[in-house]
Amino acid sequence: RITELMEPLHAADIADVLEQIGSGARRALLALWSGEIDGEILSEIDESIREEVIESLPHSVVAEAMRELDTDDVVDILEDLDLPQQGLILDALEDVDRIAVQQAMGYPEESAGRLMQREVVVAPEHWTVGEAIDYLRETPHLPDQFYHVILVDPRMKPTGYVTLGRLLSSRRDVLLRDILEDSFRTIPATESEADVAYMFNQYHLISTPVVDVTGRLVGVITIDDAMNVLDEEHEQDMLRLAGVGDESSLSDGVWATAKQRLPWLVVNLFTASISAFVISRFESTIASLVTLAALMPIVASTGGIAGTQSLAVAVRALATRSLTSANAKRVVLRELVGGLLNGLALACLLGLAGTLIFGDWKLGLVLGAAMITNQLVAAMGGVLVPLGLHRLKLDPALASGTFVTTLTDVLGYLAFLGLASMVLL
Amino acid sequence: RITELMEPLHAADIADVLEQIGSGARRALLALWSGEIDGEILSEIDESIREEVIESLPHSVVAEAMRELDTDDVVDILEDLDLPQQGLILDALEDVDRIAVQQAMGYPEESAGRLMQREVVVAPEHWTVGEAIDYLRETPHLPDQFYHVILVDPRMKPTGYVTLGRLLSSRRDVLLRDILEDSFRTIPATESEADVAYMFNQYHLISTPVVDVTGRLVGVITIDDAMNVLDEEHEQDMLRLAGVGDESSLSDGVWATAKQRLPWLVVNLFTASISAFVISRFESTIASLVTLAALMPIVASTGGIAGTQSLAVAVRALATRSLTSANAKRVVLRELVGGLLNGLALACLLGLAGTLIFGDWKLGLVLGAAMITNQLVAAMGGVLVPLGLHRLKLDPALASGTFVTTLTDVLGYLAFLGLASMVLL
Ligand SMILES: [Mg+2]
Ligand SMILES: [Mg+2]
Ligand SMILES: [Mg+2]
Ligand SMILES: [Mg+2]
Ligand SMILES: [Mg+2]
Ligand SMILES: [Mg+2]
Ligand SMILES: [Mg+2]
Ligand SMILES: [Mg+2]
Ligand SMILES: [Mg+2]
Ligand SMILES: [Mg+2]
Ligand SMILES: [Mg+2]
Ligand SMILES: [Mg+2]
Ligand SMILES: [Mg+2]
Repeated sequence: RITELMEPLHAADIADVLEQIGSGARRALLALWSGEIDGEILSEIDESIREEVIESLPHSVVAEAMRELDTDDVVDILEDLDLPQQGLILDALEDVDRIAVQQAMGYPEESAGRLMQREVVVAPEHWTVGEAIDYLRETPHLPDQFYHVILVDPRMKPTGYVTLGRLLSSRRDVLLRDILEDSFRTIPATESEADVAYMFNQYHLISTPVVDVTGRLVGVITIDDAMNVLDEEHEQDMLRLAGVGDESSLSDGVWATAKQRLPWLVVNLFTASISAFVISRFESTIASLVTLAALMPIVASTGGIAGTQSLAVAVRALATRSLTSANAKRVVLRELVGGLLNGLALACLLGLAGTLIFGDWKLGLVLGAAMITNQLVAAMGGVLVPLGLHRLKLDPALASGTFVTTLTDVLGYLAFLGLASMVLL
Repeated sequence: RITELMEPLHAADIADVLEQIGSGARRALLALWSGEIDGEILSEIDESIREEVIESLPHSVVAEAMRELDTDDVVDILEDLDLPQQGLILDALEDVDRIAVQQAMGYPEESAGRLMQREVVVAPEHWTVGEAIDYLRETPHLPDQFYHVILVDPRMKPTGYVTLGRLLSSRRDVLLRDILEDSFRTIPATESEADVAYMFNQYHLISTPVVDVTGRLVGVITIDDAMNVLDEEHEQDMLRLAGVGDESSLSDGVWATAKQRLPWLVVNLFTASISAFVISRFESTIASLVTLAALMPIVASTGGIAGTQSLAVAVRALATRSLTSANAKRVVLRELVGGLLNGLALACLLGLAGTLIFGDWKLGLVLGAAMITNQLVAAMGGVLVPLGLHRLKLDPALASGTFVTTLTDVLGYLAFLGLASMVLL
């Protein structure tokens, strides 16, 4: 019954169902199912529950499922399992595949070498279209997916590629080397997967050969896998900016969720104490004019929003490589002047409101001046903090949010209370 | 000289250079260049400066550049220009292309109809591999990019497709209908481009036929364009969450930058006034214990971080369709319990610190209790606000940030000062 219901669904959708139901229902479903499972389902399922799913299936079922997959998908599954499970899966593979998978596992995590599939279609440089087609017709196990025939020299170095469309539309006697594609480039196996995803998106690549240090062809990366990496990089930026651990997933339980978020909350507890300390230095000022305590969060929180705005723009620009050393100065200047303009606009609004409501133009002045100061600080912090982290080869999305809001909180309170103690008392 | 320097660069990189230099340098560069420009460069360049670039080039140069492009790229350029410029470009196109472009422009903005290219490769259902190959060899203008031969019935309804790899590896006498691909599906031309991008990523699609309301083939969408949409959707989520206008770009000038960010800053000015109002109700409490003014931002800001964390997870989960009505209840419950756990942890830390530093266990108790309350509010707000917006068919990324931090600020101050006035005075 279950198998019948699931049959028409795409493996990716079945994986989603498994992710969305509770872990009790998941175990029950998998038990019903354990006769066989499509390898694609194991490949699509989120890593947060993959281990649980694999453990609940008989070894023989998992082994059978693995044999259907391309090597890139096997590597993707394998790299998140612990050693005994890895061994079981490796043993299940045919020799050729096992060697390919082990070789891929030798490259660093999140590198092109881990992302590539070993299944490639190559041809010697001197072949004609007709020879290539005959070869393809005679080869029993072609990759599930391939979009180019890669030309290699006798030492297996890729020298160009021909699209399948071009191959199909050319006469049999045309030489492959005469219909090479302009877009050809190779990717070193040690390149980071984020750079690979960027390259695919920037250059509209469909599949690209991967080479080892000696320049020899070791595999090929296809765009569907690069798109997946792009999507995961996005997720990482978004979650890191918000102070959530990377490994977060919707299938995580309560404990895992709480644990992923606690670190930045604790950090914030300390940084917020800095604000508290700054405010405590002005207790006598507040004591003589308690209204200041009510007004001070306005300046601080508006600064927080402005800082978050600058930060999001800067982190995104760094991720898309559009913020570079060539334009960093101009962007920083733009943020500074933009912050000044918005600071002026907000200062007018808040200053006027303060003057009218409290009948005290000096208070309005203090509000306005503190607002301008803090908007400038926010604009600068929002762009300089991620730029600084990037220079230090750290991820600009990491920690930036907490740093920037601490900055705008502390400076916001300091500017407002400092000015108030000078002007109003 | 300039042309020589630029020659080896990919159009996408040249577009990046144009985006990154200042507008003065850009004008100078374009003036030097105005003999001809690659259509791909106009296609790759960011929409924020595309109009400026097109205006600075002679009409004939732009017209010539347009003729090289596939219809999807022409549509992408056209839709952001104003009517007179649109007219000039349409006039420059050949009749077939003009009609295709005008038809695409008839579909809603950000729909599959705008994203598709008109250039398709079709074959009747009864053809063999050999007939298809002969047809491809004889057809003079094949699309730059195609990955499938689409089978259509006599009324031009797509009924399946064959990958080029399959076509190349099959014998000439094999029927196309016998080597159809499983992954086949069609996209209605009115489907949103965000849904299209999701579908490509979810099902590992490479190219997919687009059909009109009657089910007839009108074009095809390729994965490189879907990947671009995915990237832009992510940018939108990230910027909207941070309260930045969508149309933001790094090439924007100071005025544009300030204007995009001012609206949410002004909204925050008002919402922050609610916090100020809440605090002002407790002025007598603060007057009798000024330390409260210093401590209250700790509770509020830690709540802000927790709310931002929940929010980022929820917005991302909605974007990836992993938060659905099937698991919404469980996710909300998880956030609630997770918020409680972290609230307890933070309450212990802060309560203990408060007790030790101020030698007042009642103050520690108030800090801890307010922290727990606000962490619960943050966890709930962070997931319920985006879920609510999603139910209302609004973008959950829009405005959520300001709503959630307002909530945690107001409730944070209220809980802390309210408890303090009851327990401490
Ligand atoms: Mg999924
Ligand atoms: Mg696959
Ligand atoms: Mg992986
Ligand atoms: Mg793959
Ligand atoms: Mg992952
Ligand atoms: Mg990153
Ligand atoms: Mg705040
Ligand atoms: Mg670009
Ligand atoms: Mg193109
Ligand atoms: Mg567009
Ligand atoms: Mg295209
Ligand atoms: Mg756009
Ligand atoms: Mg969206």
